[in-house]
Amino acid sequence: MPSYKAPVDDVMFLLSDVFHIDRHNNLPGFAEATPDLIEAVFGEAAKFAEQVLTPLNRVGDKEGCRRHDDGAVTTPTGFKDAYQKLTAGGWLGIAAPAEFGGQGLPMVLAQAVNEFLCSANMAFAMYPGLTEGAIAALQAHASPEQKALYLPKLIAGQWSGTMNLTEPQCGTDLGLVRTRATPQPDGSYKISGTKIFISAGEHDLVENIVHLVLARIDGAPVGTRGISLFIVPKFLPDAGGGIGARNAVSCGSIEEKMGIHGNATCVMNYDGATGWLMGEANRGLQAMFTMMNEARLGVGVQGLALSEVAYQNAAAYAKERLAGRALTGAKFPQQPADPIIVHPDVRRMLMSMRAFNEAARALVLWVALQSDVAHRSEDAKERQAAEDRLGLMTPVIKGVLTDQGFANTVSAQQIFGGHGYIAEHGMEQFVRDARIAMLYEGANGIQALDLVGRKLPKDGGRALQAFFAEVTAYIKQHGADAGMAPFVTPLNQGLGELQQATMWFLQNALGNPDNAGAGATDYMHLFGLVVLGYMWCLIAEAAKTKASGGDGAAGRMAERLTTARFFMERMLPAAATHLARIKAGAASTMELPAEAF
Amino acid sequence: MPSYKAPVDDVMFLLSDVFHIDRHNNLPGFAEATPDLIEAVFGEAAKFAEQVLTPLNRVGDKEGCRRHDDGAVTTPTGFKDAYQKLTAGGWLGIAAPAEFGGQGLPMVLAQAVNEFLCSANMAFAMYPGLTEGAIAALQAHASPEQKALYLPKLIAGQWSGTMNLTEPQCGTDLGLVRTRATPQPDGSYKISGTKIFISAGEHDLVENIVHLVLARIDGAPVGTRGISLFIVPKFLPDAGGGIGARNAVSCGSIEEKMGIHGNATCVMNYDGATGWLMGEANRGLQAMFTMMNEARLGVGVQGLALSEVAYQNAAAYAKERLAGRALTGAKFPQQPADPIIVHPDVRRMLMSMRAFNEAARALVLWVALQSDVAHRSEDAKERQAAEDRLGLMTPVIKGVLTDQGFANTVSAQQIFGGHGYIAEHGMEQFVRDARIAMLYEGANGIQALDLVGRKLPKDGGRALQAFFAEVTAYIKQHGADAGMAPFVTPLNQGLGELQQATMWFLQNALGNPDNAGAGATDYMHLFGLVVLGYMWCLIAEAAKTKASGGDGAAGRMAERLTTARFFMERMLPAAATHLARIKAGAASTMELPAEAF
Repeated sequence: MPSYKAPVDDVMFLLSDVFHIDRHNNLPGFAEATPDLIEAVFGEAAKFAEQVLTPLNRVGDKEGCRRHDDGAVTTPTGFKDAYQKLTAGGWLGIAAPAEFGGQGLPMVLAQAVNEFLCSANMAFAMYPGLTEGAIAALQAHASPEQKALYLPKLIAGQWSGTMNLTEPQCGTDLGLVRTRATPQPDGSYKISGTKIFISAGEHDLVENIVHLVLARIDGAPVGTRGISLFIVPKFLPDAGGGIGARNAVSCGSIEEKMGIHGNATCVMNYDGATGWLMGEANRGLQAMFTMMNEARLGVGVQGLALSEVAYQNAAAYAKERLAGRALTGAKFPQQPADPIIVHPDVRRMLMSMRAFNEAARALVLWVALQSDVAHRSEDAKERQAAEDRLGLMTPVIKGVLTDQGFANTVSAQQIFGGHGYIAEHGMEQFVRDARIAMLYEGANGIQALDLVGRKLPKDGGRALQAFFAEVTAYIKQHGADAGMAPFVTPLNQGLGELQQATMWFLQNALGNPDNAGAGATDYMHLFGLVVLGYMWCLIAEAAKTKASGGDGAAGRMAERLTTARFFMERMLPAAATHLARIKAGAASTMELPAEAF
Repeated sequence: MPSYKAPVDDVMFLLSDVFHIDRHNNLPGFAEATPDLIEAVFGEAAKFAEQVLTPLNRVGDKEGCRRHDDGAVTTPTGFKDAYQKLTAGGWLGIAAPAEFGGQGLPMVLAQAVNEFLCSANMAFAMYPGLTEGAIAALQAHASPEQKALYLPKLIAGQWSGTMNLTEPQCGTDLGLVRTRATPQPDGSYKISGTKIFISAGEHDLVENIVHLVLARIDGAPVGTRGISLFIVPKFLPDAGGGIGARNAVSCGSIEEKMGIHGNATCVMNYDGATGWLMGEANRGLQAMFTMMNEARLGVGVQGLALSEVAYQNAAAYAKERLAGRALTGAKFPQQPADPIIVHPDVRRMLMSMRAFNEAARALVLWVALQSDVAHRSEDAKERQAAEDRLGLMTPVIKGVLTDQGFANTVSAQQIFGGHGYIAEHGMEQFVRDARIAMLYEGANGIQALDLVGRKLPKDGGRALQAFFAEVTAYIKQHGADAGMAPFVTPLNQGLGELQQATMWFLQNALGNPDNAGAGATDYMHLFGLVVLGYMWCLIAEAAKTKASGGDGAAGRMAERLTTARFFMERMLPAAATHLARIKAGAASTMELPAEAF
């Protein structure tokens, strides 16, 4: 069975030494987050993830969720108990506002904890994850009364939340939503329609489930401008805010799917269910979009989380499994064979995963910090810069971290040879679970289009120019430092390729937007390589400083420098291929008639 | 449910127009294979694959195989009936010698049919596939008596075959095999030990199963030089060659695994089972190696086959599913949205799969033809050249076609969005089934090492030099043809990069073999890009000729030219990244101590 150890040390290093979280102590909640408190939070989260959630991961996969004839859904053995431990620990409210019962700590801490939970048990972690999404939506768009009614219950974990967007005929293209909302004299609405792929749509973990549902008010304009967002609880709140009558929403079936079996993916039927408008009528999609950055960041974290746990198990196996001899001569001549970690091709896979994981974790924390600044700073200019960064990086994090995270679970499985294909080792579950993150919350092709078609041109390219300026300034600042040259020189080259790609779009996509569409995925991955390379530079710089501090950290810091070099030598060079593909344009991609396929 | 249409036209075009199969009519079995006969064989095979095997694919996945308390194993509903149709059609003996009941047709035809069967139902196709492997082994190494006893039954499909190599402590490193063979006075051996991962190890499709088993004769040298190959039938043949006493070999359990559920992957227990030595004592591994080229070619075909069927279903979905509008303006304004095939990113994925499939199919057929020449030519020089090519291309076909074939099933699933994750669409099954091909018959890292460490230096580099000379001559011959320039120019660049990589190994791997090991996988993929690029040149050349023939083929031929351009512009450029990685050497890959992982 797979094991897991939360990378607390790495997160602490990133927060303290790379991103200097204490420099944000002017923001609400940050001064309270002293290094001791942070370490205590992470220590407890790690214990919960390692000891409670990890052993339930395979149980969840094997048992799955079961729907009963009355529409009730049972989660796998142990999930309910674990969920109670989770809520008792206050984990749902780490970053939620204190006025509704949260701890008000920085969001960046919640994202770090989120990684631990997802690594240990992604299917389980989705339940609190969706509730956190609902909390964010209510915070941003609900009326004061709605907030007072729902937020305390959700933050305490007494109730849970869901997002109801997709319908059979539409996923990406939400303009095609058909679910209807009919206004009632009392100001409520009757909601009717079918929603599919509703994660955590029905389950036995909590006493009530608060569904946030996209629907079209009778007579609303067609397309995306006629969609509104509704709160539709499973049980209607009674006068005292407790559990009232059962609402006309039910789980019609649960999907048989490739992975995340421990999470109930439901078809939800709304048969004239009572709902209340949240935010403005016909502005539901815009409301969803404002929450999307955080939700997509959370999905990116899933990619990283599965890559990390898969890496840990592959590394352990590689040190244990004996086969063949090192090419440079037997390393353990007294054993019948050497452990496979002596083989360069096994190392190549391990180093690739590691070089991704550590930089991806840095990127997640860096961007989560931007999210904190965007929500909490009192300086409008600072907020805007943070929002720009958050918006620009969101599709990159979602698309690149889930594509590469999945690829890494496949590599980790590969290290097990044939044993990787056998269920009991758990490696194939990581592959199956990781696969969903490339598909939901906007398939990765949509992320690429969001980046190229929306985030690049937004505000006259302000966010992109700011990023280019930041990295350029960094390169300039460290260009003369010979110790940083192995990192800064390749970054400079990668940045140049990214800038060339951007310029190519400027020159070729206005006349033919297909030229942007055909290069979008390559651009997203090129962007990912450059920003991960930038993270490696920041890490290397901090590691050099810390290594010279003489507090016994030199060994681990030297490992980081080697891993940074590996990234620069072995991973960043793929940037050139992405650029070549982008510059090829759309012609051969689009030339064939549809009937030719 | 997924559908499938066997690419008969493409195979016919490749055999007739690209590889001119009729030029081999001097070889036994080829003159009989007239175009009409070939088309009839493919037509029947296509019908069987499409109509009988395709509908059983999901049944096999859902039901899996069941082991009963007495050790008997039941295959999924419909498999037995389909197997009877397969054997009744004579499909097992297409290329087997006529003297044992086969049809004696070219192996290249059997490989083409093999692709159809694997696309339709990979788990099913493994049963005849393993029998074909056993037939090949017996043909090459068995005594005349053994051949007479076993071959007719195996070729008729009355009995089936297996390969028993892996044990719990060893897969890749077969020198660690522990299964014992104790000589008996009658010349037989008692075989004792446990074998794992035995595909088709026990099932209900046939009356007897012939296990080929690697074991160590008592007192044999340790390591790879003390391993022998044995024939161990489930039922001992009686005096008349029929079914005699039950042998002491049994299925201890069947593995719970990621995919290919319809194939029984067995733990086989040998408890003093009666076996007979096949070939020379202590030369069992060498015997296995002589069959490995064909077996690995067959696994490469699985990668192609799943890529093809996944592509077909993704293309159909992309033409049908409506979402969003074409970037260049609505293509179907009367519909609520355009079909997603209008989106460049969807096209990119479809074209990438297609450009791989058609070239990979060409490569398989080209190399299968080499296998025919190697086995059937009377000209020793011709045989040697064919064997050289076969040996050189085998790891490339196995490693590249299964890596890329798997990646393509993931892309095809991606086109379905969230629906791709749901079992009923069948796309996730293709991913799970395709995954095994990267692991078995030598994990792909082993293929890369086989290529770099064994096949490149073999016979002073003769095979590689011949390949370089062939492609160089081709480029020279067509260099002045402006119509071929879009294909030949990029191929020339790719070939140059492959030659640089080869040179780098020559200069850097002798002193430090880790430099070869760390670059082996990249070299294999670089090699794959170049040889697939070469295939695209051959296809483009033939397509141009045929298009000018004015027989109505111009449309399909123009599609091939576009697809060839896509390959050159969008896929071949990855060669540069592989070269850069190779040249980075092993330093950062190998630097960390094992404890750091």
